[in-house]
Amino acid sequence: MSSGTNGTEPKRRGRRRSGADTKAALLAAAREVFTEQGYDAATVRAIAAQAGVDPAMVNHWFGGKAGLFSAAVHIPVNPAEVVPQLLAGDREQLAERLLRRFLTVWDNAEGGQFAALVRSIATNENAVAMLREFIQNVMFEKLIKALDVDQPDLRGALCGSQIVGLGMARYVVRLEPLASADHDTVVAAVGPNLQRYLTGALD
Amino acid sequence: MSSGTNGTEPKRRGRRRSGADTKAALLAAAREVFTEQGYDAATVRAIAAQAGVDPAMVNHWFGGKAGLFSAAVHIPVNPAEVVPQLLAGDREQLAERLLRRFLTVWDNAEGGQFAALVRSIATNENAVAMLREFIQNVMFEKLIKALDVDQPDLRGALCGSQIVGLGMARYVVRLEPLASADHDTVVAAVGPNLQRYLTGALD
Repeated sequence: MSSGTNGTEPKRRGRRRSGADTKAALLAAAREVFTEQGYDAATVRAIAAQAGVDPAMVNHWFGGKAGLFSAAVHIPVNPAEVVPQLLAGDREQLAERLLRRFLTVWDNAEGGQFAALVRSIATNENAVAMLREFIQNVMFEKLIKALDVDQPDLRGALCGSQIVGLGMARYVVRLEPLASADHDTVVAAVGPNLQRYLTGALD
Repeated sequence: MSSGTNGTEPKRRGRRRSGADTKAALLAAAREVFTEQGYDAATVRAIAAQAGVDPAMVNHWFGGKAGLFSAAVHIPVNPAEVVPQLLAGDREQLAERLLRRFLTVWDNAEGGQFAALVRSIATNENAVAMLREFIQNVMFEKLIKALDVDQPDLRGALCGSQIVGLGMARYVVRLEPLASADHDTVVAAVGPNLQRYLTGALD
Protein backbone atom coordinates (compact mmCIF):
# COMPACT_ATOMS: atom_id res chain seq x y z
CA MET A 1 0.00 0.00 0.00
CA SER A 2 3.01 2.29 0.09
CA SER A 3 4.05 2.87 -3.50
CA GLY A 4 0.71 3.81 -5.08
CA THR A 5 -0.57 7.36 -5.35
CA ASN A 6 -3.62 7.74 -3.16
CA GLY A 7 -6.25 10.32 -2.38
CA THR A 8 -4.31 11.91 0.45
CA GLU A 9 -1.35 12.89 -1.71
CA PRO A 10 -1.37 16.50 -2.93
CA LYS A 11 -2.26 16.78 -6.61
CA ARG A 12 -0.50 19.16 -8.96
CA ARG A 13 -2.78 21.79 -10.55
CA GLY A 14 -5.78 20.96 -8.37
CA ARG A 15 -7.05 17.47 -9.21
CA ARG A 16 -5.78 17.38 -12.81
CA ARG A 17 -3.03 14.98 -13.84
CA SER A 18 -1.44 14.24 -17.17
CA GLY A 19 -2.41 11.06 -19.01
CA ALA A 20 1.07 9.67 -18.39
CA ASP A 21 0.70 10.27 -14.65
CA THR A 22 -2.71 8.62 -14.61
CA LYS A 23 -1.48 5.59 -16.56
CA ALA A 24 1.59 5.19 -14.35
CA ALA A 25 -0.53 5.46 -11.19
CA LEU A 26 -2.98 2.85 -12.53
CA LEU A 27 -0.17 0.45 -13.51
CA ALA A 28 1.45 0.73 -10.09
CA ALA A 29 -1.88 0.22 -8.33
CA ALA A 30 -2.75 -2.70 -10.64
CA ARG A 31 0.50 -4.49 -9.82
CA GLU A 32 -0.26 -4.16 -6.11
CA VAL A 33 -3.93 -5.09 -6.19
CA PHE A 34 -3.67 -7.95 -8.70
CA THR A 35 -0.74 -9.43 -6.77
CA GLU A 36 -2.59 -9.19 -3.47
CA GLN A 37 -6.01 -10.33 -4.64
CA GLY A 38 -5.52 -12.27 -7.90
CA TYR A 39 -7.13 -11.42 -11.22
CA ASP A 40 -10.71 -12.50 -10.52
CA ALA A 41 -11.08 -10.92 -7.09
CA ALA A 42 -9.45 -7.59 -7.98
CA THR A 43 -11.93 -4.92 -9.09
CA VAL A 44 -11.44 -1.94 -11.39
CA ARG A 45 -12.97 0.21 -8.66
CA ALA A 46 -10.41 -0.92 -6.06
CA ILE A 47 -7.47 -0.37 -8.41
CA ALA A 48 -8.73 3.08 -9.40
CA ALA A 49 -9.22 4.01 -5.75
CA GLN A 50 -5.70 2.81 -4.94
CA ALA A 51 -4.40 4.97 -7.80
CA GLY A 52 -6.54 7.93 -6.79
CA VAL A 53 -8.20 8.23 -10.22
CA ASP A 54 -11.68 7.85 -11.64
CA PRO A 55 -12.54 4.21 -12.51
CA ALA A 56 -13.54 5.37 -16.01
CA MET A 57 -9.83 6.02 -16.66
CA VAL A 58 -9.25 2.24 -16.71
CA ASN A 59 -11.49 1.88 -19.73
CA HIS A 60 -10.14 5.05 -21.25
CA TRP A 61 -6.46 4.12 -21.07
CA PHE A 62 -6.48 0.30 -21.05
CA GLY A 63 -9.81 -0.81 -22.52
CA GLY A 64 -10.87 -2.49 -19.27
CA LYS A 65 -9.59 -4.80 -16.56
CA ALA A 66 -7.96 -7.39 -18.86
CA GLY A 67 -6.09 -4.71 -20.79
CA LEU A 68 -4.85 -3.08 -17.58
CA PHE A 69 -3.68 -6.46 -16.29
CA SER A 70 -1.79 -7.19 -19.53
CA ALA A 71 -0.12 -3.79 -19.49
CA ALA A 72 0.85 -4.29 -15.83
CA VAL A 73 2.56 -7.57 -16.71
CA HIS A 74 4.35 -6.02 -19.75
CA ILE A 75 2.19 -7.84 -22.31
CA PRO A 76 1.04 -5.41 -25.00
CA VAL A 77 -2.28 -7.04 -25.91
CA ASN A 78 -5.75 -6.83 -24.44
CA PRO A 79 -7.08 -10.42 -24.12
CA ALA A 80 -10.65 -9.10 -24.00
CA GLU A 81 -10.19 -7.94 -27.58
CA VAL A 82 -7.78 -10.58 -28.84
CA VAL A 83 -9.50 -13.77 -27.68
CA PRO A 84 -12.74 -13.18 -29.65
CA GLN A 85 -10.72 -12.23 -32.73
CA LEU A 86 -8.66 -15.42 -32.47
CA LEU A 87 -11.74 -17.60 -31.98
CA ALA A 88 -13.45 -16.17 -35.09
CA GLY A 89 -12.45 -18.50 -37.93
CA ASP A 90 -11.46 -22.08 -38.67
CA ARG A 91 -10.49 -23.78 -35.42
CA GLU A 92 -7.84 -25.85 -37.20
CA GLN A 93 -6.04 -22.59 -37.99
CA LEU A 94 -6.29 -21.15 -34.50
CA ALA A 95 -2.60 -21.82 -33.79
CA GLU A 96 -1.63 -19.94 -36.94
CA ARG A 97 -3.73 -16.91 -35.96
CA LEU A 98 -2.33 -17.03 -32.43
CA LEU A 99 1.27 -17.20 -33.65
CA ARG A 100 0.81 -14.39 -36.17
CA ARG A 101 -0.70 -12.19 -33.47
CA PHE A 102 2.09 -13.05 -31.04
CA LEU A 103 4.82 -12.37 -33.62
CA THR A 104 3.25 -9.12 -34.78
CA VAL A 105 2.86 -7.78 -31.25
CA TRP A 106 6.31 -8.77 -30.02
CA ASP A 107 8.25 -7.99 -33.19
CA ASN A 108 6.74 -4.51 -33.11
CA ALA A 109 7.14 -3.93 -29.38
CA GLU A 110 9.83 -1.37 -28.84
CA GLY A 111 12.92 -1.86 -26.73
CA GLY A 112 12.82 -5.55 -26.04
CA GLN A 113 9.49 -5.81 -24.22
CA PHE A 114 9.65 -9.60 -24.12
CA ALA A 115 13.10 -9.38 -22.55
CA ALA A 116 11.66 -6.94 -19.99
CA LEU A 117 8.95 -9.48 -19.18
CA VAL A 118 11.51 -12.26 -18.71
CA ARG A 119 13.71 -10.00 -16.59
CA SER A 120 10.77 -9.18 -14.37
CA ILE A 121 9.76 -12.83 -13.88
CA ALA A 122 13.36 -13.91 -13.34
CA THR A 123 13.87 -11.45 -10.52
CA ASN A 124 10.46 -10.84 -8.94
CA GLU A 125 8.16 -13.49 -7.48
CA ASN A 126 5.14 -11.17 -7.78
CA ALA A 127 5.74 -10.87 -11.51
CA VAL A 128 5.86 -14.69 -11.72
CA ALA A 129 2.47 -14.89 -10.02
CA MET A 130 1.05 -12.29 -12.39
CA LEU A 131 2.34 -14.05 -15.51
CA ARG A 132 0.97 -17.36 -14.22
CA GLU A 133 -2.38 -15.66 -13.64
CA PHE A 134 -2.26 -14.11 -17.11
CA ILE A 135 -1.62 -17.44 -18.83
CA GLN A 136 -3.95 -19.55 -16.72
CA ASN A 137 -6.87 -17.26 -15.95
CA VAL A 138 -6.78 -14.43 -18.49
CA MET A 139 -5.44 -15.56 -21.85
CA PHE A 140 -5.59 -19.31 -22.44
CA GLU A 141 -8.36 -20.10 -20.02
CA LYS A 142 -10.90 -18.19 -22.08
CA LEU A 143 -9.42 -19.28 -25.38
CA ILE A 144 -9.33 -22.98 -24.55
CA LYS A 145 -12.59 -23.18 -22.61
CA ALA A 146 -14.29 -21.91 -25.76
CA LEU A 147 -12.86 -24.86 -27.73
CA ASP A 148 -14.62 -27.45 -25.53
CA VAL A 149 -11.67 -29.88 -25.55
CA ASP A 150 -10.40 -32.38 -22.94
CA GLN A 151 -7.74 -31.39 -20.39
CA PRO A 152 -8.11 -27.62 -20.87
CA ASP A 153 -5.72 -26.71 -18.04
CA LEU A 154 -2.95 -28.97 -19.36
CA ARG A 155 -3.47 -27.54 -22.85
CA GLY A 156 -3.19 -24.00 -21.50
CA ALA A 157 0.07 -24.84 -19.73
CA LEU A 158 1.44 -26.58 -22.86
CA CYS A 159 0.52 -23.59 -25.05
CA GLY A 160 2.19 -21.36 -22.47
CA SER A 161 5.33 -23.51 -22.65
CA GLN A 162 5.56 -23.22 -26.45
CA ILE A 163 4.68 -19.53 -26.65
CA VAL A 164 7.01 -18.51 -23.83
CA GLY A 165 9.69 -20.79 -25.28
CA LEU A 166 9.31 -19.23 -28.71
CA GLY A 167 9.64 -15.79 -27.16
CA MET A 168 12.75 -16.89 -25.26
CA ALA A 169 14.30 -18.40 -28.40
CA ARG A 170 13.43 -15.47 -30.69
CA TYR A 171 13.78 -12.42 -28.45
CA VAL A 172 16.01 -13.33 -25.50
CA VAL A 173 18.46 -16.11 -26.43
CA ARG A 174 18.12 -15.19 -30.13
CA LEU A 175 18.58 -18.67 -31.57
CA GLU A 176 19.13 -18.49 -35.31
CA PRO A 177 17.57 -19.04 -37.78
CA LEU A 178 14.43 -18.76 -35.61
CA ALA A 179 15.29 -15.28 -34.32
CA SER A 180 15.37 -13.77 -37.83
CA ALA A 181 12.83 -16.03 -39.55
CA ASP A 182 9.83 -14.38 -41.24
CA HIS A 183 6.38 -15.06 -39.85
CA ASP A 184 5.46 -17.60 -42.56
CA THR A 185 8.51 -19.71 -41.66
CA VAL A 186 7.73 -19.61 -37.94
CA VAL A 187 4.08 -20.48 -38.58
CA ALA A 188 5.04 -23.43 -40.79
CA ALA A 189 7.50 -24.72 -38.21
CA VAL A 190 5.69 -24.07 -34.92
CA GLY A 191 2.02 -23.92 -36.00
CA PRO A 192 1.33 -27.69 -36.18
CA ASN A 193 2.89 -28.18 -32.73
CA LEU A 194 0.84 -25.40 -31.15
CA GLN A 195 -2.30 -26.65 -32.88
CA ARG A 196 -1.79 -30.10 -31.33
CA TYR A 197 -1.62 -28.48 -27.89
CA LEU A 198 -4.87 -26.60 -28.62
CA THR A 199 -7.04 -29.26 -30.26
CA GLY A 200 -5.02 -32.44 -30.92
CA ALA A 201 -4.80 -35.75 -29.05
CA LEU A 202 -2.55 -35.40 -26.01
CA ASP A 203 -2.11 -39.06 -25.09
CA MET B 1 40.73 -10.76 -17.14
CA SER B 2 40.28 -9.24 -13.71
CA SER B 3 38.06 -11.65 -11.78
CA GLY B 4 39.84 -14.93 -12.45
CA THR B 5 42.52 -16.34 -10.22
CA ASN B 6 45.79 -16.35 -12.10
CA GLY B 7 49.33 -17.52 -11.62
CA THR B 8 50.54 -14.31 -10.01
CA GLU B 9 48.15 -14.54 -7.09
CA PRO B 10 49.58 -15.95 -3.88
CA LYS B 11 48.43 -19.49 -3.18
CA ARG B 12 47.46 -20.69 0.25
CA ARG B 13 49.56 -23.57 1.62
CA GLY B 14 52.11 -23.40 -1.19
CA ARG B 15 50.49 -24.44 -4.49
CA ARG B 16 47.76 -26.63 -2.97
CA ARG B 17 44.10 -25.66 -3.19
CA SER B 18 40.94 -27.42 -2.12
CA GLY B 19 38.75 -29.09 -4.75
CA ALA B 20 36.10 -26.43 -4.18
CA ASP B 21 38.64 -23.67 -4.82
CA THR B 22 39.86 -25.37 -7.97
CA LYS B 23 36.33 -25.88 -9.30
CA ALA B 24 35.35 -22.28 -8.54
CA ALA B 25 38.49 -20.95 -10.22
CA LEU B 26 37.86 -23.10 -13.30
CA LEU B 27 34.20 -22.00 -13.53
CA ALA B 28 35.14 -18.32 -13.27
CA ALA B 29 37.89 -18.72 -15.87
CA ALA B 30 35.55 -20.72 -18.14
CA ARG B 31 32.92 -17.98 -18.08
CA GLU B 32 35.55 -15.43 -19.10
CA VAL B 33 37.29 -17.44 -21.78
CA PHE B 34 34.17 -18.99 -23.36
CA THR B 35 32.49 -15.56 -23.47
CA GLU B 36 35.54 -13.94 -25.05
CA GLN B 37 36.43 -16.69 -27.52
CA GLY B 38 33.31 -18.82 -28.04
CA TYR B 39 33.06 -22.55 -27.41
CA ASP B 40 35.07 -23.86 -30.35
CA ALA B 41 38.01 -21.49 -30.08
CA ALA B 42 38.40 -21.71 -26.32
CA THR B 43 40.89 -24.37 -25.19
CA VAL B 44 41.05 -26.33 -21.96
CA ARG B 45 44.69 -25.26 -21.70
CA ALA B 46 43.79 -21.53 -21.88
CA ILE B 47 41.03 -21.87 -19.30
CA ALA B 48 43.26 -23.84 -16.93
CA ALA B 49 46.03 -21.25 -17.33
CA GLN B 50 43.57 -18.46 -16.61
CA ALA B 51 42.46 -20.32 -13.48
CA GLY B 52 46.03 -21.09 -12.45
CA VAL B 53 45.43 -24.84 -12.26
CA ASP B 54 46.66 -27.92 -14.08
CA PRO B 55 44.66 -28.66 -17.28
CA ALA B 56 44.09 -32.23 -16.01
CA MET B 57 41.79 -30.74 -13.36
CA VAL B 58 39.24 -29.97 -16.12
CA ASN B 59 38.87 -33.66 -16.86
CA HIS B 60 39.01 -34.54 -13.20
CA TRP B 61 36.26 -32.18 -12.06
CA PHE B 62 34.11 -31.70 -15.16
CA GLY B 63 34.77 -34.62 -17.48
CA GLY B 64 36.21 -32.36 -20.18
CA LYS B 65 35.54 -29.14 -22.05
CA ALA B 66 31.82 -29.74 -22.73
CA GLY B 67 31.13 -30.60 -19.10
CA LEU B 68 32.99 -27.51 -17.90
CA PHE B 69 31.02 -25.36 -20.33
CA SER B 70 27.71 -26.82 -19.14
CA ALA B 71 28.58 -26.29 -15.51
CA ALA B 72 29.64 -22.70 -16.27
CA VAL B 73 26.22 -22.01 -17.81
CA HIS B 74 24.37 -23.67 -14.87
CA ILE B 75 23.34 -26.75 -16.88
CA PRO B 76 24.03 -29.90 -14.87
CA VAL B 77 24.71 -32.32 -17.74
CA ASN B 78 27.79 -33.11 -19.77
CA PRO B 79 26.78 -33.15 -23.45
CA ALA B 80 29.85 -35.21 -24.30
CA GLU B 81 28.31 -38.02 -22.24
CA VAL B 82 24.62 -37.35 -22.83
CA VAL B 83 24.52 -36.97 -26.60
CA PRO B 84 25.85 -40.48 -27.37
CA GLN B 85 23.48 -41.97 -24.79
CA LEU B 86 20.51 -40.19 -26.36
CA LEU B 87 21.48 -41.23 -29.87
CA ALA B 88 21.71 -44.92 -28.88
CA GLY B 89 18.25 -46.35 -29.57
CA ASP B 90 15.21 -45.93 -31.79
CA ARG B 91 15.36 -42.52 -33.43
CA GLU B 92 11.57 -42.18 -33.27
CA GLN B 93 11.86 -42.24 -29.48
CA LEU B 94 14.69 -39.73 -29.28
CA ALA B 95 12.35 -36.99 -28.03
CA GLU B 96 11.14 -39.23 -25.23
CA ARG B 97 14.70 -40.03 -24.13
CA LEU B 98 15.63 -36.35 -24.32
CA LEU B 99 12.62 -35.28 -22.25
CA ARG B 100 13.16 -37.97 -19.61
CA ARG B 101 16.80 -36.92 -19.27
CA PHE B 102 15.84 -33.24 -19.07
CA LEU B 103 13.14 -33.88 -16.45
CA THR B 104 15.37 -36.14 -14.36
CA VAL B 105 18.23 -33.66 -14.33
CA TRP B 106 16.14 -30.57 -13.58
CA ASP B 107 13.68 -32.16 -11.17
CA ASN B 108 16.65 -33.42 -9.16
CA ALA B 109 18.69 -30.23 -9.34
CA GLU B 110 18.73 -28.59 -5.97
CA GLY B 111 17.68 -25.05 -5.24
CA GLY B 112 15.99 -24.06 -8.46
CA GLN B 113 18.90 -24.44 -10.86
CA PHE B 114 16.70 -23.78 -13.89
CA ALA B 115 15.48 -20.56 -12.27
CA ALA B 116 19.14 -19.63 -11.66
CA LEU B 117 19.82 -20.18 -15.36
CA VAL B 118 16.88 -17.97 -16.36
CA ARG B 119 17.91 -15.30 -13.87
CA SER B 120 21.40 -15.27 -15.29
CA ILE B 121 20.24 -14.96 -18.90
CA ALA B 122 17.63 -12.33 -18.00
CA THR B 123 20.21 -10.08 -16.41
CA ASN B 124 23.53 -10.81 -18.10
CA GLU B 125 24.26 -10.57 -21.81
CA ASN B 126 27.33 -12.83 -21.46
CA ALA B 127 25.14 -15.56 -20.02
CA VAL B 128 22.79 -15.16 -23.00
CA ALA B 129 25.69 -15.66 -25.38
CA MET B 130 26.81 -18.75 -23.46
CA LEU B 131 23.35 -20.33 -23.46
CA ARG B 132 23.01 -19.63 -27.18
CA GLU B 133 26.39 -21.25 -27.72
CA PHE B 134 25.35 -24.23 -25.57
CA ILE B 135 22.16 -24.84 -27.53
CA GLN B 136 23.54 -24.16 -30.98
CA ASN B 137 27.09 -25.49 -30.84
CA VAL B 138 27.28 -27.89 -27.90
CA MET B 139 24.02 -29.70 -27.31
CA PHE B 140 21.67 -29.78 -30.29
CA GLU B 141 24.27 -29.26 -32.96
CA LYS B 142 25.86 -32.63 -32.28
CA LEU B 143 22.56 -34.35 -31.60
CA ILE B 144 20.85 -33.13 -34.75
CA LYS B 145 23.81 -33.36 -37.10
CA ALA B 146 23.92 -37.06 -36.23
CA LEU B 147 20.31 -37.46 -37.40
CA ASP B 148 21.11 -36.34 -40.96
CA VAL B 149 17.88 -34.35 -41.37
CA ASP B 150 17.04 -31.20 -43.35
CA GLN B 151 17.30 -27.73 -41.73
CA PRO B 152 19.40 -28.84 -38.76
CA ASP B 153 19.91 -25.30 -37.42
CA LEU B 154 16.19 -24.52 -37.47
CA ARG B 155 15.48 -27.84 -35.75
CA GLY B 156 18.01 -27.04 -33.05
CA ALA B 157 16.41 -23.65 -32.42
CA LEU B 158 12.92 -25.18 -32.35
CA CYS B 159 14.03 -27.87 -29.89
CA GLY B 160 15.60 -25.13 -27.81
CA SER B 161 12.30 -23.21 -27.84
CA GLN B 162 10.32 -26.21 -26.59
CA ILE B 163 12.86 -27.36 -23.99
CA VAL B 164 13.47 -23.87 -22.60
CA GLY B 165 9.71 -23.23 -22.69
CA LEU B 166 9.03 -26.46 -20.81
CA GLY B 167 11.58 -25.46 -18.19
CA MET B 168 10.01 -21.99 -17.89
CA ALA B 169 6.51 -23.47 -17.56
CA ARG B 170 7.50 -26.22 -15.09
CA TYR B 171 10.20 -24.61 -12.96
CA VAL B 172 9.85 -20.82 -13.21
CA VAL B 173 6.24 -19.81 -13.97
CA ARG B 174 5.01 -23.15 -12.51
CA LEU B 175 1.99 -23.60 -14.74
CA GLU B 176 -0.25 -26.34 -13.43
CA PRO B 177 -0.88 -29.15 -14.11
CA LEU B 178 2.40 -29.21 -16.07
CA ALA B 179 4.52 -28.13 -13.08
CA SER B 180 3.46 -31.15 -10.97
CA ALA B 181 2.87 -33.69 -13.76
CA ASP B 182 4.79 -36.97 -13.60
CA HIS B 183 7.31 -37.72 -16.31
CA ASP B 184 5.02 -40.09 -18.23
CA THR B 185 2.38 -37.37 -18.54
CA VAL B 186 4.91 -34.80 -19.75
CA VAL B 187 6.38 -37.28 -22.24
CA ALA B 188 2.92 -38.14 -23.61
CA ALA B 189 2.01 -34.46 -23.96
CA VAL B 190 5.27 -32.91 -25.18
CA GLY B 191 7.07 -35.90 -26.75
CA PRO B 192 5.29 -35.93 -30.14
CA ASN B 193 5.86 -32.19 -30.53
CA LEU B 194 9.57 -32.41 -29.73
CA GLN B 195 9.91 -35.46 -32.00
CA ARG B 196 8.47 -33.43 -34.91
CA TYR B 197 11.10 -30.76 -34.32
CA LEU B 198 13.81 -33.45 -34.33
CA THR B 199 12.81 -35.65 -37.26
CA GLY B 200 9.38 -34.63 -38.62
CA ALA B 201 8.35 -32.56 -41.65
CA LEU B 202 8.76 -28.84 -40.89
CA ASP B 203 6.88 -27.36 -43.86
